[in-house]
Amino acid sequence: MKPHEVVVLSASDNLRVADGILLSAAQCEVPVDPGLTWSVTKRTLVGGVQEGVELIEVDNGCLRFTIIATRGMSVLDARLGELRFGWNSPIQQIVHPSHMDLGDRSGLGWLGGFNELMVRCGISSAGHPGVESDGHLLTLHGKIGNLPASEVRVSIELDPPHRIRVQGLVEEKTFKFGLFELWTEVSTIPGSNRLQFNDRLINRSDYEQEYQLIYHVNFGPPILQHGSTFLAPFKSVFPFNEYAAEGIDTLHSYLGPTRGYGEQVYCFDPIADEENDSTGLLKNCEGDQAVAVHFGIETLPCFTLWKNTDTLADGYVTGLEPGTGFPYHRSLERLAGRLPRLASSSQIDFRVELEFLNDVASIARVEERINRLQHGHDRQVNRTPPPDGRDGRNEL
Amino acid sequence: MKPHEVVVLSASDNLRVADGILLSAAQCEVPVDPGLTWSVTKRTLVGGVQEGVELIEVDNGCLRFTIIATRGMSVLDARLGELRFGWNSPIQQIVHPSHMDLGDRSGLGWLGGFNELMVRCGISSAGHPGVESDGHLLTLHGKIGNLPASEVRVSIELDPPHRIRVQGLVEEKTFKFGLFELWTEVSTIPGSNRLQFNDRLINRSDYEQEYQLIYHVNFGPPILQHGSTFLAPFKSVFPFNEYAAEGIDTLHSYLGPTRGYGEQVYCFDPIADEENDSTGLLKNCEGDQAVAVHFGIETLPCFTLWKNTDTLADGYVTGLEPGTGFPYHRSLERLAGRLPRLASSSQIDFRVELEFLNDVASIARVEERINRLQHGHDRQVNRTPPPDGRDGRNEL
Amino acid sequence: MKPHEVVVLSASDNLRVADGILLSAAQCEVPVDPGLTWSVTKRTLVGGVQEGVELIEVDNGCLRFTIIATRGMSVLDARLGELRFGWNSPIQQIVHPSHMDLGDRSGLGWLGGFNELMVRCGISSAGHPGVESDGHLLTLHGKIGNLPASEVRVSIELDPPHRIRVQGLVEEKTFKFGLFELWTEVSTIPGSNRLQFNDRLINRSDYEQEYQLIYHVNFGPPILQHGSTFLAPFKSVFPFNEYAAEGIDTLHSYLGPTRGYGEQVYCFDPIADEENDSTGLLKNCEGDQAVAVHFGIETLPCFTLWKNTDTLADGYVTGLEPGTGFPYHRSLERLAGRLPRLASSSQIDFRVELEFLNDVASIARVEERINRLQHGHDRQVNRTPPPDGRDGRNEL
Repeated sequence: MKPHEVVVLSASDNLRVADGILLSAAQCEVPVDPGLTWSVTKRTLVGGVQEGVELIEVDNGCLRFTIIATRGMSVLDARLGELRFGWNSPIQQIVHPSHMDLGDRSGLGWLGGFNELMVRCGISSAGHPGVESDGHLLTLHGKIGNLPASEVRVSIELDPPHRIRVQGLVEEKTFKFGLFELWTEVSTIPGSNRLQFNDRLINRSDYEQEYQLIYHVNFGPPILQHGSTFLAPFKSVFPFNEYAAEGIDTLHSYLGPTRGYGEQVYCFDPIADEENDSTGLLKNCEGDQAVAVHFGIETLPCFTLWKNTDTLADGYVTGLEPGTGFPYHRSLERLAGRLPRLASSSQIDFRVELEFLNDVASIARVEERINRLQHGHDRQVNRTPPPDGRDGRNEL
Repeated sequence: MKPHEVVVLSASDNLRVADGILLSAAQCEVPVDPGLTWSVTKRTLVGGVQEGVELIEVDNGCLRFTIIATRGMSVLDARLGELRFGWNSPIQQIVHPSHMDLGDRSGLGWLGGFNELMVRCGISSAGHPGVESDGHLLTLHGKIGNLPASEVRVSIELDPPHRIRVQGLVEEKTFKFGLFELWTEVSTIPGSNRLQFNDRLINRSDYEQEYQLIYHVNFGPPILQHGSTFLAPFKSVFPFNEYAAEGIDTLHSYLGPTRGYGEQVYCFDPIADEENDSTGLLKNCEGDQAVAVHFGIETLPCFTLWKNTDTLADGYVTGLEPGTGFPYHRSLERLAGRLPRLASSSQIDFRVELEFLNDVASIARVEERINRLQHGHDRQVNRTPPPDGRDGRNEL
Repeated sequence: MKPHEVVVLSASDNLRVADGILLSAAQCEVPVDPGLTWSVTKRTLVGGVQEGVELIEVDNGCLRFTIIATRGMSVLDARLGELRFGWNSPIQQIVHPSHMDLGDRSGLGWLGGFNELMVRCGISSAGHPGVESDGHLLTLHGKIGNLPASEVRVSIELDPPHRIRVQGLVEEKTFKFGLFELWTEVSTIPGSNRLQFNDRLINRSDYEQEYQLIYHVNFGPPILQHGSTFLAPFKSVFPFNEYAAEGIDTLHSYLGPTRGYGEQVYCFDPIADEENDSTGLLKNCEGDQAVAVHFGIETLPCFTLWKNTDTLADGYVTGLEPGTGFPYHRSLERLAGRLPRLASSSQIDFRVELEFLNDVASIARVEERINRLQHGHDRQVNRTPPPDGRDGRNEL
């Protein structure tokens, strides 16, 4: 009998397991519904810039998704039956961090590896590149998405509901410049249509540290199409910059692939339930396929909508992005009071859940939830960007 | 029987073949002249900064040459019998791209890996480093020569003349900043003294893109020596900068290794035949060893001669460089009208052929060809660099 | 019988040996005292940013230490019985150079991999980052500590005293910008408490080159503790900057882990014996554990003391650093006359020896030596930094 937990990779113990099935219905004596042929598999890529990239593929019997251990425990894509969630980035290879140059193009190098359904942005900084007050260049969306996990384990709970977990430690540490450990967890329950992130950020320094974290959650076709809509409960929204302001009236709807569109970005103050959970919903035109992004606002109080409905070849994609702040340069976030600090030797937790939906009834339930949360709250729609952001480039 | 085609490496199919003979006279039922013991072999390097570099070694029974799959499908060197073509760079290791830092030394990092007979410069930019109008640093000679091929295959044609091909895809793609695929092909006919590049550049973006491509073809001893000469048919030539202007009178001849020489660079407008092919010839002092660089001017209208006859230890080498333009900074090339654009979702082909020569009669035939092409055309030899280039640093 | 010399790694011969014991008392017919179970072992790391890092572990029967072949032949740590020498960097992983970005944070990227007992700084530059007169950014402490060795061999002498050697070639070469080979050697005698560096720097260029080399030798607990002291014979000392000047009166003693301390740096002009050897001594509060750093001043005329007694989590460490100069930016070192030049095609040797001490009598002997060397020499203690260094950041 295979164990219910496997250490996949450990820098501290200097070990890794071979490619293959790590856990599965056939190998583990875990009383999951026998109709669900779940598994967790490891695979290593070869060729080009993806040489040596390690993937963890989870199949919960209903939902399948792929975690990129070598790229910060990001999620590449997910499949509910035949329906794929994620996006068709023009970057097809899954780029190994050793081939990334984040400082390239004045700090836009991150764009050379961006193709995930979910990539975390942070930790020392997220958002726009640019020079900070200390003269150092902050690169787009920081380092955390391009660091290999140093400890990876997968497990299934013996007790119901038999949650399958993929846990990975991503360390963003520089002597004298921040000692962050992000203990990531992606989990799912066999047979469910949900995928859950439960991440713990630890500041290993004896000094308080500023930090940023944005969950860059991205979708293209088929969920994203002409006539797709975005719904969320919110108190207020403002456009990221002047160009986004031009699209404020059609904030909730999507164009089809549009030559020259580029991107428009909107910054929301979300409304949450009594458990501090809020929800954003992206649904297709027909309303029979959707994804809900649930997130805990006590640590992720901001929500960014990134609309990048450019051409199919260049990237037709939208991002639903819970975060500690908005994707302005860190210096602007600091000024705006959206740059949190983590006390010395302390930790903070973040939760984001993705719910993949392919039936009208379930989608209606999420819409009802959003309406219920909005009920009794006015929506303040600002038509102009804040002064600091006005001239900002787009979110990228 | 081994197949007449082998997929060596494929990022899309996640496969690679082991080191060893891929194709050979002994293994393939291809009716090549049985006197020619041709082969194609794969070899992987270990140690230092060349760890993991993959080479494809081609022996056509007469000419042997080595392709560096991990460095943009460059050609390291070639051998005709005992005669080696290429140069003795002070960089002896074949540097894996993961050890390169192109942004180093204000964008001169490329020089840390330069030791090939042929390395392509491009695609978003080639030429001198420097900051562009958008504020981004362009690094010397761009990225394409330091990207690993993501798809590599080798083949031999069943039909005469049984051309042996090594094909590799090199992708230079960044979300929002260019989606180039360079489908490279190096080929040779068993028993011949020629090596041919047939490259196709595809713009996968829905937007038109500027591009640059220079074939940096380099030779040191024994072809290059005191008294070696360079011959080519051309309408006009100008010195790259003031320092090159000092050497304009001895443009066609080479010094021996010369302390303090550095480099002198000359920019030619070549003359082509009715098939749009032009030719540059480098021959040794005796006139019994030479190399001809043939190239198609419809897509490579410029030719640069890089004379770097410095000391043997520091690099005694010359470059014969067909290109889309000259190696000035891209912003200057744009001003000069030498910066082509590739329409959205379209492609363009380039051809360069190297002819390795070790007998007087063959060399005489190439010289006759050059004289024939020059015949009836005046040569305009400009003694001063163009105003924009005057203060430019050398070509590097 | 295993040979008494093993080539561990060779880029030029394209070979490497597998992990395991390379040389040992059991395998080699070398007449070492049979009570000493010495060995030399190779180990390769996996996981996170240490993937592929190769270590050479030497056990001389008394002293054990680990050399990082993939990181410039640095020494990670050493153990005399149960007593560990080295420091507890907040960077626990041993970072593969392909994951380093030296240019990060305006040239402070080196700090992302710093955790060694001994790391060399150099060769084109060492010391503070900053832009040189040619406009190029020099990164903190240069490249040499983050380059993989291209040739590594281990050996034991057949003749007494049967010195065990680990030799590695680290090449710092860029076409047109310096062709340095550092032939490193770390050696020890079976049963001894000493570890010796004998490095040879070769300038392979036909041009004279400036160079810098600092041996960054670092210790944390238990040798470093509240009340530890530093002793050395010297003619003069000055504080690196204004902040260090504040601590000049307690130059020789150490605080315990101190919040907000940061670092204070002092620059010594050491006194040597008739063989040109000088010595720095770090001993614990009790005076029963210590380490002596012996070095040859004819090529390492400067000695820097780096006191970084900050918190345990953020790095409680001190560095005893023989060098060709002090760790100011290269441009300042040049002005100060501390930037040596190496003639074309010539070489220079450096020697540093570490003596690990765990008994009072041995420590007393080193102290006597220091007193003897100091005898008859006044100590000039400058209370203010030199004008150029006054505003300099700390040494880092």
